Amino acid sequence: MNMRADERSPATTGELDECEVRVVDAARVDAVRLAMPDPPVIEELASSVFAMLADPSRLRLLISLLEGGELCVCDLAATTGLSESATSHALRLLRAHRVVKVRRDGRMAYYSLDDSHVRLLLDLALEHLGHGE
Amino acid sequence: MNMRADERSPATTGELDECEVRVVDAARVDAVRLAMPDPPVIEELASSVFAMLADPSRLRLLISLLEGGELCVCDLAATTGLSESATSHALRLLRAHRVVKVRRDGRMAYYSLDDSHVRLLLDLALEHLGHGE
Repeated sequence: MNMRADERSPATTGELDECEVRVVDAARVDAVRLAMPDPPVIEELASSVFAMLADPSRLRLLISLLEGGELCVCDLAATTGLSESATSHALRLLRAHRVVKVRRDGRMAYYSLDDSHVRLLLDLALEHLGHGE
Repeated sequence: MNMRADERSPATTGELDECEVRVVDAARVDAVRLAMPDPPVIEELASSVFAMLADPSRLRLLISLLEGGELCVCDLAATTGLSESATSHALRLLRAHRVVKVRRDGRMAYYSLDDSHVRLLLDLALEHLGHGE
């Protein structure tokens, strides 16, 4: 459990400008604190999931896999407009963070989205912007 | 439709190292190109959705709203361990990108997640990491 709020200096209570009391709903604040994931989980969520998706080139790759299923590096270069070298580099990073997975067949390497969560994350984010299907 | 792949120089076909032919599945590549959102949509997806979620402090705020529903700035400062000033700053940014919304009641400002997509994005990402409920 993350109780970081307890580490705050009492001096910060003098900085309130939008609330008249320090904590309005103490029971709710306690419940949220108990439910908050540990700091390493929050860090991983930021760096291994959302930061991976916060880049237009990587998003073009992932949307290609969302639409096309399993694709090889050269087909992904063709769908995204990236060079094969940039495509390979981005795929290695996405694979290291378990966003995509690879299947090798002889000299060919076929990439796909790692799991259904990644697929749903992309679908939902497009829907949120009003561009869903 | 985004046909950026057509802008590539033919010289790049000499760089293939993982595929023996330039395009393996031309029909699938064409289908993916047709389905690819326009570049401004991809940019918005990266900057207004995923980049907003790619920061541990903002994630602590959003998970607080996910767990606690509607909360005021000082309660959010208490749940996240951020100062009220840092909390307000982060909430302004999240609001500008339509990730959170605000309801004012006299001197109080209550924040909540903008829509169900944001809630599902956070749930899915936690599940993807194996930390879902």
